[in-house]
Amino acid sequence: MTPKVSIIMGSTSDLPVMEKAAEVLNNFCIPFEMNALSAHRTPAEVEDFAKNAAERGIEVIIAGAGMAAHLPGVIAAMTPVPVIGVPIKSSVEGMDALLAIVQMPPGIPVATVAINGAMNAGILAAQILAVGDAELKKKILSYKESLKKKIVDANKELAQVKYTYKTN
Amino acid sequence: MTPKVSIIMGSTSDLPVMEKAAEVLNNFCIPFEMNALSAHRTPAEVEDFAKNAAERGIEVIIAGAGMAAHLPGVIAAMTPVPVIGVPIKSSVEGMDALLAIVQMPPGIPVATVAINGAMNAGILAAQILAVGDAELKKKILSYKESLKKKIVDANKELAQVKYTYKTN
Amino acid sequence: MTPKVSIIMGSTSDLPVMEKAAEVLNNFCIPFEMNALSAHRTPAEVEDFAKNAAERGIEVIIAGAGMAAHLPGVIAAMTPVPVIGVPIKSSVEGMDALLAIVQMPPGIPVATVAINGAMNAGILAAQILAVGDAELKKKILSYKESLKKKIVDANKELAQVKYTYKTN
Amino acid sequence: MTPKVSIIMGSTSDLPVMEKAAEVLNNFCIPFEMNALSAHRTPAEVEDFAKNAAERGIEVIIAGAGMAAHLPGVIAAMTPVPVIGVPIKSSVEGMDALLAIVQMPPGIPVATVAINGAMNAGILAAQILAVGDAELKKKILSYKESLKKKIVDANKELAQVKYTYKTN
Amino acid sequence: MTPKVSIIMGSTSDLPVMEKAAEVLNNFCIPFEMNALSAHRTPAEVEDFAKNAAERGIEVIIAGAGMAAHLPGVIAAMTPVPVIGVPIKSSVEGMDALLAIVQMPPGIPVATVAINGAMNAGILAAQILAVGDAELKKKILSYKESLKKKIVDANKELAQVKYTYKTN
Amino acid sequence: MTPKVSIIMGSTSDLPVMEKAAEVLNNFCIPFEMNALSAHRTPAEVEDFAKNAAERGIEVIIAGAGMAAHLPGVIAAMTPVPVIGVPIKSSVEGMDALLAIVQMPPGIPVATVAINGAMNAGILAAQILAVGDAELKKKILSYKESLKKKIVDANKELAQVKYTYKTN
Amino acid sequence: MTPKVSIIMGSTSDLPVMEKAAEVLNNFCIPFEMNALSAHRTPAEVEDFAKNAAERGIEVIIAGAGMAAHLPGVIAAMTPVPVIGVPIKSSVEGMDALLAIVQMPPGIPVATVAINGAMNAGILAAQILAVGDAELKKKILSYKESLKKKIVDANKELAQVKYTYKTN
Amino acid sequence: MTPKVSIIMGSTSDLPVMEKAAEVLNNFCIPFEMNALSAHRTPAEVEDFAKNAAERGIEVIIAGAGMAAHLPGVIAAMTPVPVIGVPIKSSVEGMDALLAIVQMPPGIPVATVAINGAMNAGILAAQILAVGDAELKKKILSYKESLKKKIVDANKELAQVKYTYKTN
Repeated sequence: MTPKVSIIMGSTSDLPVMEKAAEVLNNFCIPFEMNALSAHRTPAEVEDFAKNAAERGIEVIIAGAGMAAHLPGVIAAMTPVPVIGVPIKSSVEGMDALLAIVQMPPGIPVATVAINGAMNAGILAAQILAVGDAELKKKILSYKESLKKKIVDANKELAQVKYTYKTN
Repeated sequence: MTPKVSIIMGSTSDLPVMEKAAEVLNNFCIPFEMNALSAHRTPAEVEDFAKNAAERGIEVIIAGAGMAAHLPGVIAAMTPVPVIGVPIKSSVEGMDALLAIVQMPPGIPVATVAINGAMNAGILAAQILAVGDAELKKKILSYKESLKKKIVDANKELAQVKYTYKTN
Repeated sequence: MTPKVSIIMGSTSDLPVMEKAAEVLNNFCIPFEMNALSAHRTPAEVEDFAKNAAERGIEVIIAGAGMAAHLPGVIAAMTPVPVIGVPIKSSVEGMDALLAIVQMPPGIPVATVAINGAMNAGILAAQILAVGDAELKKKILSYKESLKKKIVDANKELAQVKYTYKTN
Repeated sequence: MTPKVSIIMGSTSDLPVMEKAAEVLNNFCIPFEMNALSAHRTPAEVEDFAKNAAERGIEVIIAGAGMAAHLPGVIAAMTPVPVIGVPIKSSVEGMDALLAIVQMPPGIPVATVAINGAMNAGILAAQILAVGDAELKKKILSYKESLKKKIVDANKELAQVKYTYKTN
Repeated sequence: MTPKVSIIMGSTSDLPVMEKAAEVLNNFCIPFEMNALSAHRTPAEVEDFAKNAAERGIEVIIAGAGMAAHLPGVIAAMTPVPVIGVPIKSSVEGMDALLAIVQMPPGIPVATVAINGAMNAGILAAQILAVGDAELKKKILSYKESLKKKIVDANKELAQVKYTYKTN
Repeated sequence: MTPKVSIIMGSTSDLPVMEKAAEVLNNFCIPFEMNALSAHRTPAEVEDFAKNAAERGIEVIIAGAGMAAHLPGVIAAMTPVPVIGVPIKSSVEGMDALLAIVQMPPGIPVATVAINGAMNAGILAAQILAVGDAELKKKILSYKESLKKKIVDANKELAQVKYTYKTN
Repeated sequence: MTPKVSIIMGSTSDLPVMEKAAEVLNNFCIPFEMNALSAHRTPAEVEDFAKNAAERGIEVIIAGAGMAAHLPGVIAAMTPVPVIGVPIKSSVEGMDALLAIVQMPPGIPVATVAINGAMNAGILAAQILAVGDAELKKKILSYKESLKKKIVDANKELAQVKYTYKTN
Repeated sequence: MTPKVSIIMGSTSDLPVMEKAAEVLNNFCIPFEMNALSAHRTPAEVEDFAKNAAERGIEVIIAGAGMAAHLPGVIAAMTPVPVIGVPIKSSVEGMDALLAIVQMPPGIPVATVAINGAMNAGILAAQILAVGDAELKKKILSYKESLKKKIVDANKELAQVKYTYKTN
């Protein structure tokens, strides 16, 4: 099955964070691929990847990186495919990665999610693919319903937290 | 023409920032609408808007807000349509708006762009609409070419900056 | 007994922080309720809650949330009841939650306490309920006396820390 | 008319910020007083003020200060009356005042609003006074309605912003 | 022996940090006392302490506190004795305590040292007491010599770190 | 008259900030000198200055610098005289200078005041010189009284700010 | 004359900052070239530039960029030539550019100077070229002497700042 | 073998971070030395070191320090040799050391690398030594190739991460 989403990470050590995106896509039955590519160590591979992504049928790219996180922006510069950036925390609380991903100059946007927010990157990719796909839109709505159900169920447990109310 | 993109801002005072998104969409001939809606002052209107957006044919929402910028996240919570968030600078250098938009909890992503980055929000909306639209993808590529041309032309001027090279 | 204070948290995982507020209220014999409600995952429930709180006799709302913490502000937008916001630390040292709660735009205040400061939220709720309630005001004063006593007692132990004073 | 709210500021130079609180209270017909008192330059006066506030009929205190803003916390330590803190921006974007006001230790809460957020401090004071005052609660609700109307009216102007929609 | 330096801390839980100041003073044979006093929980005791310090022969005060650390500034406001402030780390990396101590308004300085820098507070107190005390100045100089010796000795160990130098 | 305080600044462009310290010292009739010395551009002069300061009768050094502000720490390393550091704002809101001055490693304290807080540096110098000088201590107390008077006078003006109290 | 240093900037609007580097190089009689190249808008040109720089005789590259400043790191990834990065302030006080340039992952260093520190970038380039060039080393030493002279001269003016010393 | 690079650290406790630089230099067969020298505790030794480095044949200095990290700047002020600064994390996430090293005033650059980025400092030193040394330049290029190979190999493992693709 041709992948529609490509998950890229700066280093395989980012896998524990980034596989959350893979799990979400899998749950939505969206075919994806996953690769490690470094903006700094494998620039030629990044270029090959970015320039051919659209032609290979990739519709959304999810790119995660830490520190001076250039990978999402560098890919975004070379493809018309929307790029979702995941700042990965490895120093200064992840603020370096967040700013290095989100503060893109005019012309080359990166759709940035929260620090270590790979799960949200997966959901956002699904939402983008659902543009003009009523079926997928429905799945996303029912996914949001399931999130709500979790809260509602958890709340029942909360109601069990007993306080011996003092009345003076 | 039915709008495909809805540009929302927390206050009409955000217009000078947000109209950059409108200009970009207009250049790509993408029909859009523009409204002021406040997560805090008009919550019912926000709800109406968010719940009916998909049905009205809105495919992407761009939402800009400043300070404790809740608007993008609140809308994202009530629609399967992808929401692009624009942090607007009005205090602490815009860091409050950036964090209040990008740091969304798992389940409800907002595709965040740079502080005051409404132009990039417009481009990102176009890229999202180009998913499965080869024509628009081509326009985006030629748009990127035009960005490049500007740099190249500007560089010619730079070459005019004369330095009387000293040679000892 | 009808609750006067409602403690809301964005997720049941916030309970270890938020139950400090419950303990304080219990000590002051103030009836309260405790619920998990997410601004993003259960927006309709949040709306129901916020719109009916005043009518149900809720006089103060304490709302805790982390990351892009919208819950306190979203509730404050839909009720005349004062809302106390508790920023919960889960990333960037809690600075995201603090800014997303305290930096509310003109018109919709949230009474913000310290990061993870749920105990203070409980005390502040009691102080607010004591407006026009001389009895409760007295309890708060004697509570402050007890805080002082703890310091004074602890200080006695400190006096035990022995230093063999050198005299040259 | 006995004042119910006391507006305190660290220096008369804070008046342009703090008078926003006075305007709001005046609009709600809530009697108030306004004074400059410095935690550092007039500590005895601060103590007198704080210790007698409740007895004089003050139900809410609004205290604004900049830099290492101790005033709100110092007052809160000496009264059972709820204290609303307004961080005033005079250096490092107001982050020093925000942290010095909001990060109160367990036992002594200060209800902190946004940097320079004196208008919200006035509204919050009104909301606190409305605890057990159905009349004032109604006024607050209609005040919120008027905020909404402003947005709605402003939006009409926004609809006038014309874009010559390009259609290719 | 009458103490010349008074070490004050906001809570006895600050002792592990603050006793570093005591150790230094002890090494310089400077008599000192150590107390817990809270700007917020025991304001009257703080006032008593501050107002009588000079008369009791206290020449320097070292005050440590965390979060919205008001203790050093509040004491400084009520005494002509120089006050050294020690920001104690308990949240946001200690940045709240640092700003709440160092950013004092014109008129009331606090001599601030590094976050958790109680050892330096002790040394600074000694340096201040050495104003007009040639004997103590000499001790401080020889103390600095001993710091240097530690580096020099440690460096000898460093020289033991062996690298098998590759020469191609 | 032999100067007792030496005011040092990293560059003559710091004079508008640093002369506030000079004014204070002058008001207290404390003899002082003022020099520009750069830790980076005139290291030998800094060394000469620091090593001879004590012998020349200098009892307190006030050193102001901006950016990576090394001057106060470098001087403190070479003299037993207490050094007061003034962080001067020239970039990133002065946070670079503040951290580069206050975060001194164990062994070499710098008594840091607020960003651009040269006036407080002058007062702190006077307080240090007043150690063992009852006369100067009295002057400092009367100086603090004058600060209080200014607040009290300003407050009279504040009382003139008229609000037409609405009474419904 | 073949350029030895290449000054690159992300946009011609960075010229007022970056030409400080050119002036320094000119003063040292070091031949240089100056170009605008954008990591995001002209990635192919950046690649061409970076891959051929060494062969063309470029010995040092100075690259300035603002916001999510990827240019220096992207160039450094494709050349063995040392790259000096200049963070350019255009938002959040330049902290985004600083972190995006300095926080490079292991393997690809960028020699980062201060925010807007292009003059220092020029000096650093000269110092690097002076490796193994005793002549240039001498020039650099005499340049440092001239910096010192400026301070010394400025200090003479400072000595003119008159204070009517009060003597009680 | 005469060392060409000198690795300096503020304290031997920095060795675990700084020895990464030594390893890199060793891999490139570049002779180096390693010493602990403190800008504050051993200023005379620092001066001796800095003033004689060039004459002893040192071509690059790598200096690591934490907190108010003055060591790299102080050395840079006294030598024409390029100085690479390594900010070492010991408080506030290393932001104090980063700003104290990178924000050098005009005239005295320090080539700053990432927080704890000693490995990159070693590589940068090699790149600087390769100016005019074609042999070393080749080694650096092949080093970059080896970095790439690691990514490529790691990627093979990544391909092993199996996801049971759901297809509805």
